[in-house]
Amino acid sequence: MSESSVRVALLGCGTVGTSVARRLVEHADELAARVGRPLEIVGVAVRDPARPRPDSGLDPALFTTDAEGLVTRADVVIELMGGIEPARGLLLRAMEHGASVVTANKALLGEDGPRLYESAARHGVDLYYEASVAGAIPLLRPLQMSLAGDSVERVMGIVNGTTNFVLDKMDRSNEDLDTVLAEAQALGYAEADPTADVEGYDARAKAAILASLAFHTRVAAPDVSCEGIMSVTAEDIRAARKMGCVVKLLAICARVRDDRGEESLSVRVHPTLVPRSHPLASVHEAFNAVFIETALAGELMFYGQGAGGDPTASAVLGDLVQAARHKVTGSRGPGESAYADLPILPLAQVETRYAIRVDVLDRTGVLAHVASAFAEHGVSIESMRQGVRRSGDGLASITIATHAATDAALARTVDRLRLLDDVSAVTSVLRMEGI
Amino acid sequence: MSESSVRVALLGCGTVGTSVARRLVEHADELAARVGRPLEIVGVAVRDPARPRPDSGLDPALFTTDAEGLVTRADVVIELMGGIEPARGLLLRAMEHGASVVTANKALLGEDGPRLYESAARHGVDLYYEASVAGAIPLLRPLQMSLAGDSVERVMGIVNGTTNFVLDKMDRSNEDLDTVLAEAQALGYAEADPTADVEGYDARAKAAILASLAFHTRVAAPDVSCEGIMSVTAEDIRAARKMGCVVKLLAICARVRDDRGEESLSVRVHPTLVPRSHPLASVHEAFNAVFIETALAGELMFYGQGAGGDPTASAVLGDLVQAARHKVTGSRGPGESAYADLPILPLAQVETRYAIRVDVLDRTGVLAHVASAFAEHGVSIESMRQGVRRSGDGLASITIATHAATDAALARTVDRLRLLDDVSAVTSVLRMEGI
Repeated sequence: MSESSVRVALLGCGTVGTSVARRLVEHADELAARVGRPLEIVGVAVRDPARPRPDSGLDPALFTTDAEGLVTRADVVIELMGGIEPARGLLLRAMEHGASVVTANKALLGEDGPRLYESAARHGVDLYYEASVAGAIPLLRPLQMSLAGDSVERVMGIVNGTTNFVLDKMDRSNEDLDTVLAEAQALGYAEADPTADVEGYDARAKAAILASLAFHTRVAAPDVSCEGIMSVTAEDIRAARKMGCVVKLLAICARVRDDRGEESLSVRVHPTLVPRSHPLASVHEAFNAVFIETALAGELMFYGQGAGGDPTASAVLGDLVQAARHKVTGSRGPGESAYADLPILPLAQVETRYAIRVDVLDRTGVLAHVASAFAEHGVSIESMRQGVRRSGDGLASITIATHAATDAALARTVDRLRLLDDVSAVTSVLRMEGI
Repeated sequence: MSESSVRVALLGCGTVGTSVARRLVEHADELAARVGRPLEIVGVAVRDPARPRPDSGLDPALFTTDAEGLVTRADVVIELMGGIEPARGLLLRAMEHGASVVTANKALLGEDGPRLYESAARHGVDLYYEASVAGAIPLLRPLQMSLAGDSVERVMGIVNGTTNFVLDKMDRSNEDLDTVLAEAQALGYAEADPTADVEGYDARAKAAILASLAFHTRVAAPDVSCEGIMSVTAEDIRAARKMGCVVKLLAICARVRDDRGEESLSVRVHPTLVPRSHPLASVHEAFNAVFIETALAGELMFYGQGAGGDPTASAVLGDLVQAARHKVTGSRGPGESAYADLPILPLAQVETRYAIRVDVLDRTGVLAHVASAFAEHGVSIESMRQGVRRSGDGLASITIATHAATDAALARTVDRLRLLDDVSAVTSVLRMEGI
């Protein structure tokens, strides 16, 4: 490392990269005071170096297509390209050459985090990724450091702004999902191809990262059960409201103990009924929030902006300052902690509460038949609520809220309901949390 | 340091100390895995070593009155005695002997933090105090590390659980302060001598700590303007409700820019009107929450338990694990950062909005006279709201909400109001924030 400055390389210069670069240029003295030495941008790898980027405040000569070369002459490499390759190859190469690494790439971490961690450990460098989950919200460092003497029992988070915007808007407008999604796209809250958000893949990668840190166990994205929001209907939202609930897409990571006290993890992403009195229910628009329960601290909540150029840049720059401080002092932050190595519980064995809506023929005895189907499979009913008979089809809607039951028992119950003569359709099955 | 373990000394063994000790005993393997070596309690300094402390799970032989000797044979010293001396002397002595230090002592940090920081820097050890502000909520580490690349513009926090319990209860029950305070004492939410809480001294020490970290400037408790809650009446709470507000005791630390762009700090603790839609308004009972606004991240909020044995122990143990990890790896966390050295703005020059309640004679022209008093002193009125004429004294109550004005201008306005013939009394002056 140069004696006089900490050399910083940027891979990618989109919205976040531009915000990071501008801050490095405009607040150079302040950042130098915080790090102990100046930060010097030694290059920015982009596809088209000739494209003018006046917002970044950078000397055009810094832009290059030679990412491979750039990462070998930096003390800290900031990766904001996204995707698996070439990001992974470049980060591994950077660490081989002794650079610490800051990334916001949840897809890469969710898919291949351990390989990056191992490389960081082998080469004695930092690997930071605060921006990868819940954008601006300081969350990973608190989990990794502040709660390091405590035991996390459960993490429940709204970690995808797009889906929260859509569900929140559906709750307030009574519109259906397609309408609201189109509106979110027009406003820039959803991408032209919203698949990664609405199918829950983005939240799944974040759940894997959260679970890994919270439970000292390697959890990869494919370990996470995942259900998106595409099947949530305006009727689901209305039924939730009648139960005093909202529907949120939650990433849930929980420690589970069986009868013998053996521990395992449940890690999942799905639309969830949450009581309106729960702190997560008040998270509106595209905001993120993560609710953490621990053995000692009790209930904690972290709230803020989960995406956007400046908020994400805040997290990236915080990581950069730590990595650079460590370069100056010869220290290192905490590495991977996976000693607990807890097994992941298959979804079929996970116990949650459910709200099931069933369309039934409006005739005597139907409630008894429905209740029996639950009892047969050992699923205990907490409440049944019959809606008004609908004109036209002669059907009535029943909402059943259950006590905790396994996914498997619930699935068998639903199969049984579908065979009942007086059940026309099982229209919705949603999990409930926070009650 | 012993090759085989990190030696930990505890000073004090009250509620928090007992919880810390029990965790160290019961979760020894887990903590060893997180630190990289076992943590070994080498002694616990208490006044009466003979007193049985079965809840701590500790060998009675570990208890000692010789705190002076104990701190010289530990790698990490945890101070939970509180108060200025002997805590200060013991911590300085511990650091001289190469121990890192973890403390929850906000009074000491608020009074003499820089001396401790300087000693930590001189002796190359860590000084951690996450538990000193907002108990279990990871707050100081995020401020010091996660937001290190951002610029904090404002910190507003409910950092005293006792006063929040009292004000929240007054809001819900319409009872007066004395009644609710007695109830809080009966429930254990307020001490027998509640002075430090209700006069705002506890929050003032915490505001000094928050401001120091957020603004890279040394701020001591005496630099903080402080007003407690003793003058808040049931009528204030009712008037606040009519304005769509709640009254909260807030610790406020804000960056202020004058016309020439020169920066200074406003650091203060006072009862504050907060709109019910603001996230801080939903913080009930004895919970704490801190709202942070930064240049890049935007609005962040951290929420959790601010006091109690286990929650405070969570923060202490997180600090301990970091300090111990550093002992194992030969690293150090960030030290004091006071480079910005911003001046503290005298309260008279701080601009806020106000809500003023005035009892007036119910006769024609009185509103004009009152409005003129504000105009004369350059205080712009946002709204005036006249209450019903009270039977008995023939007086009516007016609530005036102002635009931002300096404390000095407001004080002159209040003096003028008191001289008006048709003003019987200025019954309340409260600042407003978050609007």
